[in-house]
Amino acid sequence: MTYCVAMNLDAGLVFLSDSRTNAGVDHIQTFRKMAVWERTGERALVMLTAGNLSVSQSVVNLLNEHLCSVDTPNIYNATNMFEVARRVGEAVREVDRRDAASLKEFGVEFNASLIIGGQIRGEAPRLFHVYAAGNFIETSDDTPYFQIGEAKYGKPIIDRIIRRSTPLQDAAKCALVSMDSTIRSNLSVGLPLDLCVIERDALAIKSRVSITYDHAYFAQVRSQWGERLRDAFTALPGPEWL
Amino acid sequence: MTYCVAMNLDAGLVFLSDSRTNAGVDHIQTFRKMAVWERTGERALVMLTAGNLSVSQSVVNLLNEHLCSVDTPNIYNATNMFEVARRVGEAVREVDRRDAASLKEFGVEFNASLIIGGQIRGEAPRLFHVYAAGNFIETSDDTPYFQIGEAKYGKPIIDRIIRRSTPLQDAAKCALVSMDSTIRSNLSVGLPLDLCVIERDALAIKSRVSITYDHAYFAQVRSQWGERLRDAFTALPGPEWL
Repeated sequence: MTYCVAMNLDAGLVFLSDSRTNAGVDHIQTFRKMAVWERTGERALVMLTAGNLSVSQSVVNLLNEHLCSVDTPNIYNATNMFEVARRVGEAVREVDRRDAASLKEFGVEFNASLIIGGQIRGEAPRLFHVYAAGNFIETSDDTPYFQIGEAKYGKPIIDRIIRRSTPLQDAAKCALVSMDSTIRSNLSVGLPLDLCVIERDALAIKSRVSITYDHAYFAQVRSQWGERLRDAFTALPGPEWL
Repeated sequence: MTYCVAMNLDAGLVFLSDSRTNAGVDHIQTFRKMAVWERTGERALVMLTAGNLSVSQSVVNLLNEHLCSVDTPNIYNATNMFEVARRVGEAVREVDRRDAASLKEFGVEFNASLIIGGQIRGEAPRLFHVYAAGNFIETSDDTPYFQIGEAKYGKPIIDRIIRRSTPLQDAAKCALVSMDSTIRSNLSVGLPLDLCVIERDALAIKSRVSITYDHAYFAQVRSQWGERLRDAFTALPGPEWL
């Protein structure tokens, strides 16, 4: 399984992904689920993937392949993020046309869920959730984030904290807390993590960090959040009437 | 959908269930998912149900029907909780024999998930999770709680707080916080709630409370927990290195 989350805020975009894949509990591996494309001063794009790994790797490969030919519509010559999302959707459909029938023969469902976001010069940062059918939706002021994969464990903290106005550092902290809760409750989500931040109008990746077990800040989140949560719980009045 | 949680602690048992059922978002109704049987000084039993409502109602009805005949093995003449769990499993299988084939004809899976717990004189309090096949598992020192239904949203807080040594009031508070997080993130879980507490060796129900929107304590949990969680989040150091 997988857990990925991305947020589209007034200040920019935050992306976080885990790297565990599993085909049964005895077949666990590490694969990064974040792809980054950057043309400094012109565009910065990040994609997160969940679902069948062969499908999501194929989508990334196709998007990269199309970059080699300037005549082909690709994510570098797309003039806006809506067009980028359409090209990601088209790549998903191309893999579906190639693989879905054969997968079905082996009882495997064509399964892909992607988040693509970024900023292209002349537009605000935008964030899309692309489905297996190649269709997609975009974040709104009311719903500024998307999750894919094992989303439920880490959703309550995001619902309570994240607004469009949340600063980037707070959003990254919230994404890491949400990831920590998911990792603790579900074995199929695991380190290392990839964290990427795009500042509004920077048209470049601000930070891209790989977080392993020896990452000092994430270790601090892991140890301190549990403590602070327990303190908050203790401070909440009990049901003395029981 | 449904969210139910039950905990087996040194101090006794805590049960909490919601009451929303849905067959599509345009068919939402309120049905209690908690059944209670009590013979003061002798035994106190509580059952929580999730899954197909016709199945879980039939299970409760069969268990009650069997109580009318002293010659039939039932949950009042069962000599220990293991036997109670077996009789609940048998009732599930009886409904399966009656309904599963007809349900399948209409494309409906036989779907039931139950928690049965309590204490019978001469034994410690015990808690079981009964599956649709009528088989069941029991809590242990390492895993003192069970959840059924929409379990993921409310799992992280339980994993961080609940130990065998947690006092009953704290456990009830934790169950309510867990329920609150679930209700906020998932429309298919809703009030009123049923909260029931069995104190160790009381051999009686200590408290049974129905919690509606005007319940003062739950309103306090709803408003204060979000605030305290945000305070804890703010107090957690941010990723200044980003």
